[in-house]
Amino acid sequence: MTVISVKKSVTDANDRVAQVLRTQFLSHGIWVLNLISAPGAGKTALIEKTIEGLGSDFGIGVIEGDPHTCLDSDRIHRAGAEAIQINTRGGCHLDAIMIENALGKIHLPDIDLLFIENVGNLLCPAVWDLGQDCTAVVSSLTEGGDKPFKYPDTFARADLLLINKMDLLPHLPGSASLLKPNALKIHPGLTVFEISCTNGTGLLQWYDWIRTKVEQRQKTGGCRA
Amino acid sequence: MTVISVKKSVTDANDRVAQVLRTQFLSHGIWVLNLISAPGAGKTALIEKTIEGLGSDFGIGVIEGDPHTCLDSDRIHRAGAEAIQINTRGGCHLDAIMIENALGKIHLPDIDLLFIENVGNLLCPAVWDLGQDCTAVVSSLTEGGDKPFKYPDTFARADLLLINKMDLLPHLPGSASLLKPNALKIHPGLTVFEISCTNGTGLLQWYDWIRTKVEQRQKTGGCRA
Repeated sequence: MTVISVKKSVTDANDRVAQVLRTQFLSHGIWVLNLISAPGAGKTALIEKTIEGLGSDFGIGVIEGDPHTCLDSDRIHRAGAEAIQINTRGGCHLDAIMIENALGKIHLPDIDLLFIENVGNLLCPAVWDLGQDCTAVVSSLTEGGDKPFKYPDTFARADLLLINKMDLLPHLPGSASLLKPNALKIHPGLTVFEISCTNGTGLLQWYDWIRTKVEQRQKTGGCRA
Repeated sequence: MTVISVKKSVTDANDRVAQVLRTQFLSHGIWVLNLISAPGAGKTALIEKTIEGLGSDFGIGVIEGDPHTCLDSDRIHRAGAEAIQINTRGGCHLDAIMIENALGKIHLPDIDLLFIENVGNLLCPAVWDLGQDCTAVVSSLTEGGDKPFKYPDTFARADLLLINKMDLLPHLPGSASLLKPNALKIHPGLTVFEISCTNGTGLLQWYDWIRTKVEQRQKTGGCRA
């Protein structure tokens, strides 16, 4: 008996498209970050702050994934960057074909740094390659320290963890501070930034890190996170 | 040409099993609450607090859904109630068959109030009937006021919204307070509790509401939220 795994077949097809996207990004010297988080962790706020900090130095583009609204792409436009909205009509993740379609609406020679803001969901987006250079998990400190154990696939596949809302630390139970060490148990060596998009904590270090990645891409065309 | 919708067929089959579960719950006089939320909104903390407030009056059982761990069922055991853990192995929602299997491990005559804590995900669980009497969305105030617009299916299908972490209100941007009015725009008439499992805000009203539901079920065998 021959058993065909439909899910594997679908993600294999996705991965082929993602590889074409990756080549396209490389040829245009664009560095691409896929942002994954639970709803309300602060992905859009992080992009707004990055536009504020680096928008005069680099061309920044944003692909916004959302089940239904254009609220986030409206925020990005107001922050001063180009944003393309993908509405998944209730779908729980972005895939490479959606990104391919969105790229048709972006003038790639103007872009140095491309953010892909995935649908707010800590499970489903993790296995879908979008051709990105780097996958970042954004976690709100308020979500609790146990999330790396409960969503290990997402934390293990990520290149980067941004712990947002650090300004709330004095007002949270002590277990909140376990998020970073627990993430490092699931993924030793994971790069971690502790930030607050509200009071600016950690954002200068974040800008430096992103600046280095984008400049490396511009110089060499081949860096990975 | 005949087109068969696989997704509809799967949820139809689920709904049949859910209807059998509903009859079973009714025959045992059990009132059932399905809790849906983003990761870290405080579903487990709410159950712990409800066991603390009502555990001496009612038999409370909990079915815990989690992608991988038993962390939440361990917490429920420590709080003094029976808990059955379902690990979805990365799956993004519970379904009625999972609940049917879990019920085999619970002594139903001992239970008056059954919590089903769904997988932390604000999208996928909404369309899966588990035989519950009531579906509650638990939202953390920190997630931002726009979530009802971004996840309208979940808010529209819910019977109840519990806004948790109200103790953090003084430390959050003003837009956080839009969560309740925005939820009522998506679902006029939705029952809303504003609570904090940290400082106890709103929990007495919550206990009264739950107590009424469970007592109605015990008396009449047929109430719905």
